[in-house]
Amino acid sequence: MQPHVDVLTLGVRDLEVSRRFYLDGLKWAATLDVASEVVFIQVGHGLLLALYDIEKLEAEADADYQSGAVPPISLGHNVHSEEEVDAVLAQAGTAGGSIIAPGRKMSWGGYSGYFADPDGFRWEVVYNPGLIVDADGTVRIGSAA
Amino acid sequence: MQPHVDVLTLGVRDLEVSRRFYLDGLKWAATLDVASEVVFIQVGHGLLLALYDIEKLEAEADADYQSGAVPPISLGHNVHSEEEVDAVLAQAGTAGGSIIAPGRKMSWGGYSGYFADPDGFRWEVVYNPGLIVDADGTVRIGSAA
Repeated sequence: MQPHVDVLTLGVRDLEVSRRFYLDGLKWAATLDVASEVVFIQVGHGLLLALYDIEKLEAEADADYQSGAVPPISLGHNVHSEEEVDAVLAQAGTAGGSIIAPGRKMSWGGYSGYFADPDGFRWEVVYNPGLIVDADGTVRIGSAA
Repeated sequence: MQPHVDVLTLGVRDLEVSRRFYLDGLKWAATLDVASEVVFIQVGHGLLLALYDIEKLEAEADADYQSGAVPPISLGHNVHSEEEVDAVLAQAGTAGGSIIAPGRKMSWGGYSGYFADPDGFRWEVVYNPGLIVDADGTVRIGSAA
């Protein structure tokens, strides 16, 4: 098994609410939008985010989700400055997201804040001066402190 | 906010158990491995998977995780044939993962199966003849049926 993730599927409680947040609020474009079924959004080089009904995902992945639980993941969205972190958080708030933590200096030397989408999925908006992506897509990461 | 995910952080209950599964079991290489803290693994062009203590993530993301809940996401891992789906599932089982669903034909025209990592995170191993990634990383997806 080679180390790659190609699709990140979020189990969502109301696909219409998620569509409004991601497509109308954040102005992201759908790669494929199947009404009442699934929305795919490209979020990287060869990478798709999928919004999919949580009950269908539960059945398909044979998982017992506990409604109301906040998913134990976070989606990192890297930007290029502290000011851009603050600006993206503000935009997410305007789009209907909840600001969970404002931008602040982190112990590892960067600056980040969190917002939540309509299902509580945490997005961390990050300025990490120690993370470099080479032209071929290779990521180098070290202590920024 | 531009549509991109750069880091996918999984909140894990025991970092050593996760390290054994992903690094020793699946033979994936760490981009950065900070003992008792975090493991970063490159899983795409400019994309990192982070394994991080669930209690630290809970504090950082101000989230109330319910222990024992299966996370309502799945990580899609695309391969090039039905046979490769079966082979990857077998390898994940050997590495210490749990086979949740064997490879089978799906209603949308592809073939997929699921395994779970030590925390229950679902990985869907997929052969999707309707998904094409262009040389520049653009994803095209349509009905494979």
